[in-house]
This record gives sequence, C-alpha cells and structure tokens, in this order.
Amino acid sequence: MSLSKPPYFARMSLSKPPYFARMSLSKPCIPKARFLACISHPSHSFQRRTFSITSTCPTTTSPPSTHSPTAPRTILSGIQPTGVPHLGNYLGALANWVKLQHELLADVTIYYSIVDLHALTMPQDPAELRRAKLDMAISLLACGVDPKRSVLFEQSRVPQHAELAWVLNCITPVGWLSRMTQWKSKLSQNKPGTPSTHAQSIQDSDLTSGLRMGLFAYPILQAADILIYKATHVPIGEDQTQHLELAREIAKMFNKMYSKNVFPLPEGIIPSSTKRIMSLRHPTTKMSKSDPSDATRINLTDPPTLIASKFSQAMTDSERGITYDPVGRPGVSNLVTIYAAMRGIDVDAVLRELGDVQSNRVFKERLTEVVAEGLAPIRTESERLRADEGYVEEVLRDGAERARESAETCLREVYEVVGLR
Amino acid sequence: MSLSKPPYFARMSLSKPPYFARMSLSKPCIPKARFLACISHPSHSFQRRTFSITSTCPTTTSPPSTHSPTAPRTILSGIQPTGVPHLGNYLGALANWVKLQHELLADVTIYYSIVDLHALTMPQDPAELRRAKLDMAISLLACGVDPKRSVLFEQSRVPQHAELAWVLNCITPVGWLSRMTQWKSKLSQNKPGTPSTHAQSIQDSDLTSGLRMGLFAYPILQAADILIYKATHVPIGEDQTQHLELAREIAKMFNKMYSKNVFPLPEGIIPSSTKRIMSLRHPTTKMSKSDPSDATRINLTDPPTLIASKFSQAMTDSERGITYDPVGRPGVSNLVTIYAAMRGIDVDAVLRELGDVQSNRVFKERLTEVVAEGLAPIRTESERLRADEGYVEEVLRDGAERARESAETCLREVYEVVGLR
Repeated sequence: MSLSKPPYFARMSLSKPPYFARMSLSKPCIPKARFLACISHPSHSFQRRTFSITSTCPTTTSPPSTHSPTAPRTILSGIQPTGVPHLGNYLGALANWVKLQHELLADVTIYYSIVDLHALTMPQDPAELRRAKLDMAISLLACGVDPKRSVLFEQSRVPQHAELAWVLNCITPVGWLSRMTQWKSKLSQNKPGTPSTHAQSIQDSDLTSGLRMGLFAYPILQAADILIYKATHVPIGEDQTQHLELAREIAKMFNKMYSKNVFPLPEGIIPSSTKRIMSLRHPTTKMSKSDPSDATRINLTDPPTLIASKFSQAMTDSERGITYDPVGRPGVSNLVTIYAAMRGIDVDAVLRELGDVQSNRVFKERLTEVVAEGLAPIRTESERLRADEGYVEEVLRDGAERARESAETCLREVYEVVGLR
Repeated sequence: MSLSKPPYFARMSLSKPPYFARMSLSKPCIPKARFLACISHPSHSFQRRTFSITSTCPTTTSPPSTHSPTAPRTILSGIQPTGVPHLGNYLGALANWVKLQHELLADVTIYYSIVDLHALTMPQDPAELRRAKLDMAISLLACGVDPKRSVLFEQSRVPQHAELAWVLNCITPVGWLSRMTQWKSKLSQNKPGTPSTHAQSIQDSDLTSGLRMGLFAYPILQAADILIYKATHVPIGEDQTQHLELAREIAKMFNKMYSKNVFPLPEGIIPSSTKRIMSLRHPTTKMSKSDPSDATRINLTDPPTLIASKFSQAMTDSERGITYDPVGRPGVSNLVTIYAAMRGIDVDAVLRELGDVQSNRVFKERLTEVVAEGLAPIRTESERLRADEGYVEEVLRDGAERARESAETCLREVYEVVGLR
C-alpha cells in the first residue's frame, strides 16, 4: 500500500465530495436509514454526526467519536458465497474492498468474510454451495483482495461468530428483529403472492408460516460477525443499513448492561464510488444472482462473446442518442453507469465521450469493449487460481486462523464480562 | 460399574414397574406430552411405542427403533448452573445421573453438561454466575458424578453447540418455537401481571415486548446440545418433554432435508425413581432456586441445624398422624416423598415405618435425621472439593476436551452434508 501518499482517511475528510458517507444514528429498525455526507451539522449533533474515523484531521464540529483516536481501527465486510460475482457485486462492493486495501492507513486491520453461515438461511443445494464458496474465494482473490493486506476467511471456520451470536441473542429483543424488513422480502421471494415488505411484524401468520429461525435471527449473527472483531467501520450497501443499525444498538445494549465498553459502535461506510447496478433485462430492479435468467447479469468470468451477447440483448429503448435519465430511460442509464464505473470516470464525462453515438447498438459495442477489457485481468487470474486450488485453500486456512485468533480474544473477554469465565 | 450384574437396559425392559418411561411420539409442540410405561400397545404402535433402548432383550411388540441395535448409545443430560443444587434437583435428576453411571452397559457414553449458555437466557449477575457454575460443578462431583464414567463439561467450552444451533436455526420454523410454553412462563416470571402459559403464540405483543431472542430460541440450542453428540437417550424432567419433542422434530427434519440419517432421534427417558419435590413453604409449587426465600428449599450443603430449622418451618397442617394425600395434605405428603426418596423405600413403607408418629414435630425431627444423614457425605465431599478447586478445574477442562472431540466429529459431518465443507 502507498504509505507515501497522504493517508486515505485524512484525505477523505478534507476532500469533496467525501469518499465516505456515514449513516445516521437514529432509532433502531427504521425502515430506511438516511445517508449523510461528512459535513457536520452542529445543530443536529445526535442525529447527524460526521464521519469521524480520522484521527489526523478531526473537524472542530465533530461530536465526540465513540472510538478513541488511538484505538485500533478495524474494517469488516462480508459477502455471501453466491458463486462467481456479477458486475453488480463488483461495482457495488468488491471494487471498493480492493481499493480500501491500498488507500488505508497501515494500522487498520481489514477482515473480509465469505459468510457461508448466512447462506444457509435460504434453501441451498449442498454441492452447489460448496462450488459457490470456492468460486467466490477465487473471484475475490482474482479481483485483487490481497491476503497479505486483508484477512480473507470463511465464516464457518471461525466458531466464535456463532458463539458470540448466542450471547447477543440473549440480550436482543425479539421485537427488534420483527421490525427488520429484509427477512420479509426474502421470505416473500420464496412465496409468491404473500405481502412482502409491507408486513409490519412477525404477527402476520400468513407471512411467517414458512419463516425459519435462521432467516429471522440472522441480523444477530451479522452483528456478531462485526462485533467479534470489534470492527469500527463496516463498508455496507444501502440494503444493509438497517442491520448495521441493529448491530450498533446491540453493541450499545451490551456495553450498557455490563457497564463496560467491550464493543466499539461500528460505523457504516459507503464509499462514494459505490454503484448500484441494475438488471440488464429489468433495469428497475437490482442486478442479482437470484434472477433465474443469466442474461440479466454480467458475471466476472464471462468471456467477451458472452458479454457482447448479454449487452446486445439488454433492455434499452427506441430513443436515439445516449442520455442519463434513470427514471425516464432506466435501461440506457444503467448501461451509462456501468460504462462510467468501468472507465473510472463520471457520468458527464461518459456523455461527452459518447456524444457522437446515436444508436444503442453502437453504444453497446463500445460498452462491451470497455467491460470485456476491464474484466479480462480478473478472468485470467480466476483461471490461473482455478488451476491452483491448493493455494486458495491455503489462503482460506491461513485467514481463518488469523480471524480465529482475534475472535477468540474478544470472545474470552465477552465470556468473562458475562460471567461464563 | 457392575458388569457382572444383568445389564441395566435389559433388566429395565423386563421388570415391572419399568425403570424408564418413554415419552409419546406425537405431533410436535403439544402442550403436555403423555408418558407411557414400557409395556407396549401394539394397537397404538405409532403413538405408543415401547422404550426400546435395549438391544439385548427387545420385546416382540416393539416397532422398529430408530437406533440400530449395534449403534452406539449415548446419553446426554444438562443442568443449569444455579449454584449448589437443592433437594428437588437431587431427587429429581442428579441422583438418577449418578445411578445411570453405575447401572448402564459399558458401551454407553454419558455426557453431563453444565449448560451455562442457557443460563444467559435469564438476567444474571456475572460474579454470581461464575460462583454458581463452580458450585454446581463441585456439587455434581460431590453427588457422585464420576469423571471416569461420564463426560462432565461446561457447555460454553464446547463451541460446537452454538455452531450446530445456527445450522438448526436455519431449518426450524419460527412457528414451532412460538408454540413452546416455557418461554412464556419464564417471561411472565419476570413480568408480574402478564398472562403466562395461556398465551397461544408470539403474537401477543404485551407478552413478547420484553422477550429476548435467547429465551425464545433456546430450545434450538437445547436440540443442538443433544444432537451434537448424536445422543440416543435423554433423561428429562416432565417440564422438558416439549423441548425434547422439538429436538426430535428438528432431527427428523434435518435427516429428511438432506436425505441422510445424520442424527438418531433422541428418546426421552424418565427414570421411575424421579421424584417431584415441592417447596417447603408452598407445597403446591415445585421446590425451586428462583424462590426468593431460602427456607423453601434444602440445599445439598445445608448443615444439619439449618435442615432442622427449615423442616421445622415447613408448611404442614394440623391433622394428627402421617398420611400420604398430595391433594388434601400437600405439605405432609411432600415430606413423606422426601423421606421415602432419601431412605430409598416406597411411600407405603414410610407410612408403616412412621405408623407410631402422631405429631408433625416428631415426623420433622425424624425426617431431619434421615436427610441430614443422607446429605452428610455430599456436604463433606463438597467441602473437600472446595479446597481443591484445581482438581475441579482439571475435571472440567478434561471433560470439555473430550466433549469437543466428539462434537467436532459430528459438526464436521453436518457441515459436509449441508455443503459448508
């Protein structure tokens, strides 16, 4: 990593637009957390706090951080083992994972977890899950997750996640989980026809009749994933803000119940470069592995011919010329977003660059070039790693060992505090 | 153990009254499971199955057991770390734990667990919990739990319990837990005025507003406690039958979902010598550690003077003479039950033995003698062990190691089956 450059965090809190946005600290379980830039509003110091990870350049308007300036800073993020990631995963999270490694201060520890225990909350074919785990590990390494810089590990190899989850179960009100929205939407995915995110609580027996405890309780395991490393910062997608807010509330409650600051309150960080990539066929819904049609997404290992074919079938419209209008022209705008992200430029620059392009066909050809070229190194590296599974296994084993060591230190402290040791 | 004597299980299935009763196999979550003796009823072969642990002397009317005759048999039982046990714990469970060790076949493995993770489902003072755990361990050893014969361990030292619990979470419907009655009564203990066991489901928001996930989900951890050792038999009290039934249903569901007989279906065993001991002051409720008055119970380490004082204050009635009539004379009958259990004779023999006693005072004096004499070796041994905490710690460490080894074998199999390995 570039130690000679100005430190990542310091730069971030000075520059505009801010690299990180900090989620608001509000009541737990609000349906939609608001995101705030790092310009602080002293008049709303509780609800609107600045992103205060920096210890080198604090703004005078920042309220006291929950993290001591000298306390170690730890980043944790997790991804489900869904197999080879798609472009939405990459531009929405993984590209930032890689970037964080190179731009962070040296004293920040990074944990990247393949959260295979969470995968069990939805029906899985065992052989498929095994394959998907390996594919995800290979892809993460191929994207540039560096085992020398980050602790890359599979969640199920670190027993302390489940152990801490139990302790947190014992303090977390069932009502907090009832108010989560994600289990409702996930449950409704499997049960067409049932009301989904509009359901208000677990009381809707139509909705809950098929609900398993794992899906209902998984935000607690997620809180444990974060807290077991005393993570101070968690890169998240927008759909995870409610769960991070829950993790903060659980941490707060634990610290208060046992009158000891065991857990720092983890702060959500959303790199401003995060892109929300939509389905190629249904551009008003997110690109997703759960869509049965593979043509709705670009997988990171798709060869150029397949990329070309998928883009050529992507839904656009009959208007001529390239513009950016996510509401009026969702299909074209999604392709513009992808183009911009892969070229590392902003949307305006894309529109200038493509000013002469009138037909969607030509735009799609240029997009194919950009994407195929951008993904080529990942595809090549994936192939190389696939031929060297022994190395991948070694990385995961080593990562799990390092994760366990840190997790065990925390668990021992928790067990002491609650009276088990 | 006495290998020369007829094997425990074989004798059991031949003798009358049967030592073991087997809980009925019925729909999960029925409010009150029925207990059936080991005389089988061929006409009710599904609902009424014989207790079929024996491989040496199967009755011809037994339906096929879920356990292969040659499969290893494993007994698991757990007790919460409530400190020094009282007479109700001893006569209701621990005396049988000790007995099982000496009467079982050599190829039966016994696990006795101090279930400290379950203790966290109710509010605990950490220092008090630490002390209570040690007291419980000392008491178990003092009562005769033999580390050479049984694996005695603390639940929290075996991570695989929590790990398996997570996997089981992922297959267990929330509705199954909603129907459990114990969390409702435990919750109402802490919230006077709320409806308790009559509440039908989690939908009662008055009742659930204070409910924590740990208390709600703990039957799943309990299922994991049993299944992680592939326990075939579980000595239980009547108030645990619903939870054991749940464990069986979870095991069945897992085996079915993954088309593999990973878990034997654990069978509940209730030794016929199990006594339900009532509070000395409120003889219609069970003797319990949660009663704020220590005078309601005899603790195993109470000195004779304290035993005398507690019995002298025990609620009886003004009728003369000793009779056994739990409904009409609950106080006296409870003392008769205690007397009988401590003398190892039946109630009729007690009534003959005490035929000349007319006053409660004299009865209580004789009862004090019997109980003080019966508990003396336990008290002495407790004192000896308290002065040798290093030995107790060594026993627990060794027990945890043996438990972990077995639990890890099972967890590895489970993880393979579900696709995590």
